[in-house]
Amino acid sequence: MPADAVRTPITLDDIRAAADAIKGAVVQTRQRPSCTLSEILGCDLILKFENRQFTASFKERGALNKLLSLSAAERKAGVIAMSAGNHAQGVAYHASRLAIPATIVMPRATPNVKVQFTKTHGARVLLEGDSLSEAAAFAHNLAEREDLVFVHPYDDRHVIAGQGTIALELLGAWPELDCLVVPIGGGGLIGGIATAAKALRPEIEVIGVQTALYPAMKQALAGEEIRVGGATIAEGIAVKQPGQLTRQIVRAHVDDIVLAEEQMIERAIALLVNVEKTVVEGAGAAGLAAILSDPERFRGRRVGTVLCGGNIDQRLLASVLLRDLVSQGRLARLRIRLGDKAGELARVAGLIGDAGGNIVDVAHQRVFSHLPAKDALIEVAVETRDDAQLAAVIERLAAAGYTVTRLADD
Amino acid sequence: MPADAVRTPITLDDIRAAADAIKGAVVQTRQRPSCTLSEILGCDLILKFENRQFTASFKERGALNKLLSLSAAERKAGVIAMSAGNHAQGVAYHASRLAIPATIVMPRATPNVKVQFTKTHGARVLLEGDSLSEAAAFAHNLAEREDLVFVHPYDDRHVIAGQGTIALELLGAWPELDCLVVPIGGGGLIGGIATAAKALRPEIEVIGVQTALYPAMKQALAGEEIRVGGATIAEGIAVKQPGQLTRQIVRAHVDDIVLAEEQMIERAIALLVNVEKTVVEGAGAAGLAAILSDPERFRGRRVGTVLCGGNIDQRLLASVLLRDLVSQGRLARLRIRLGDKAGELARVAGLIGDAGGNIVDVAHQRVFSHLPAKDALIEVAVETRDDAQLAAVIERLAAAGYTVTRLADD
Repeated sequence: MPADAVRTPITLDDIRAAADAIKGAVVQTRQRPSCTLSEILGCDLILKFENRQFTASFKERGALNKLLSLSAAERKAGVIAMSAGNHAQGVAYHASRLAIPATIVMPRATPNVKVQFTKTHGARVLLEGDSLSEAAAFAHNLAEREDLVFVHPYDDRHVIAGQGTIALELLGAWPELDCLVVPIGGGGLIGGIATAAKALRPEIEVIGVQTALYPAMKQALAGEEIRVGGATIAEGIAVKQPGQLTRQIVRAHVDDIVLAEEQMIERAIALLVNVEKTVVEGAGAAGLAAILSDPERFRGRRVGTVLCGGNIDQRLLASVLLRDLVSQGRLARLRIRLGDKAGELARVAGLIGDAGGNIVDVAHQRVFSHLPAKDALIEVAVETRDDAQLAAVIERLAAAGYTVTRLADD
Repeated sequence: MPADAVRTPITLDDIRAAADAIKGAVVQTRQRPSCTLSEILGCDLILKFENRQFTASFKERGALNKLLSLSAAERKAGVIAMSAGNHAQGVAYHASRLAIPATIVMPRATPNVKVQFTKTHGARVLLEGDSLSEAAAFAHNLAEREDLVFVHPYDDRHVIAGQGTIALELLGAWPELDCLVVPIGGGGLIGGIATAAKALRPEIEVIGVQTALYPAMKQALAGEEIRVGGATIAEGIAVKQPGQLTRQIVRAHVDDIVLAEEQMIERAIALLVNVEKTVVEGAGAAGLAAILSDPERFRGRRVGTVLCGGNIDQRLLASVLLRDLVSQGRLARLRIRLGDKAGELARVAGLIGDAGGNIVDVAHQRVFSHLPAKDALIEVAVETRDDAQLAAVIERLAAAGYTVTRLADD
């Protein structure tokens, strides 16, 4: 056994024990090559569909393994967790199955949909605190007062071992993978996966992915001050404090941590919808986003990545799909200045159609304009097949004497 | 063998032969219960994920079975098909795999994306005709001139037998299904499925689903004039002329044909995204839409349905997701009349927030209004958790003296 494995918090045996324990109660999710994405990326890509767990994320594995580790007395007293997201659902669902009383603390601003969903699994849900850290403090306090076991979302040996079962399945089916690309929030997922993968296949490269806005684990390992923040679509991995146990494992077993930009995460979500017909949340797309960001690094290699969650808000998904069309030049909003006289709109619409554009929305607006009152501004959302056709539309309008501005957002 | 089976164009043996023939070259797609949808619907629902075929629809089964039935000389001469959609991709993909030259005729107005996608499978794509029927006439003509085998999208024994392999898989895994709910366009899918299902399990009920805008098969069987038309989201089953062979099978083996309204198909697409994390096109959601439309009919029964395709345009999917939020009362556009003075917008925004609404978009507009110039209209897109909270937002604004209109669309 290599020296590293002794020093890190969990071992392959812990993960094998977890796999035995949770077998049958979590989904052994699909893991298969994506021919089309492999062609796009120039590597052999294997996707692991953890978005197909019952509560649509890998969190069930760790939560269930933790619950199964409890003594009869602990089970009777019950558990508590703090989470506004996938961990809450994973704990609530399996606690309910095992008849363990569960309390979930969520910050007060948690969307009602998530509260309701967690309640349907029979958990007691308490809305406390104005931030995740306030909610966590409340939960720890309540755990003490009511003698409940606190189920940490990542910094717990049983939780990490549970997440590691993903690697047993993946390498069981695809033992010759060269590289694994795994999202990092607190580090539970990659901690378990890296421990198992390096034990089974020491030459495998394990690459962690954080969003560029929340590179907390990367900063922590570099000994830098943790400076994170901003609105990210990958809120599932927007963690401010990486775990202590997970930090040790990542230091020992993870070869590199790369950062994914928001726009690339959105691109990855849209690609998975279009190519794989599957729905992932931002964190679930982070691995693919990392590969898309640096295809040279992965070219010709056998690469596995985990689509770790599928819980994305319906409105957010819609706007990701639209924004992605915009960034591909397939949808654009043009502001066109035109004289306020009869027939101008028809003329503009005709020119756009002639150039192959499809008008999907029209708005007139004058309120915010500084133009003379007789001029009008029109905003037209135009769908084209690509950037080149969009350029042709704009050129056609300009050639006919119109002043056209392409607006930044849709 | 019951008398019916003799009279209809294909038999269970044809379908078993098709299953042997296409084995390994098409995906034996996932088929599994949906716990959450079963709970919502009050039945035991099994979903068959044909959107997970390589070209994202069941059409590959029939197309491949047809291609495999050709003689060496026919294969050498090549095949031709007319389709702007899934059939085109199914034929092009498998013809390419088998090194059979393929020509696909598409109507001239076919979106470029679909043309490109079919070309990537190596087919010769010809854009001819201003309608599907003109394109079909051209294709038949060309087939004659160039001695190509015409691969019909549905009215062909080998094609129907290929689609029937879905029922072998479904009843193989779930032999006790009480009922199958299957979309109908030309009738190839339900023709194959009904033939196999009734042979394997005579007491099973087979229900066909058409969109309310294109009830061609239902009208044909009732001896009515076929009157169809309109913009449907389920363009994959928007067929004007049901097949002759398929008509015979549907008459013999299909117990009922029901119609699904557009809004229910959109609801079904959104539910599959949210609950199953899977992407289906309109036709692919028609079966679930039918069950959603009449849950009493299915209550307590074991019901199977086929998610027959996943090729939905990205912008269309986004707008379905947004419209679905609107129809659930979770997103609304409110037009509010307010005096054009400082602080009014802040006041309105405050009232909306107090009532729990989340403002996602604001637009001022005065151009089209008939109000005195000093008044302003504001349009606010508000997200709420449900209809009741939306009503509370409107009431709060009204109580503060504002005139509020809820706009019909988002």
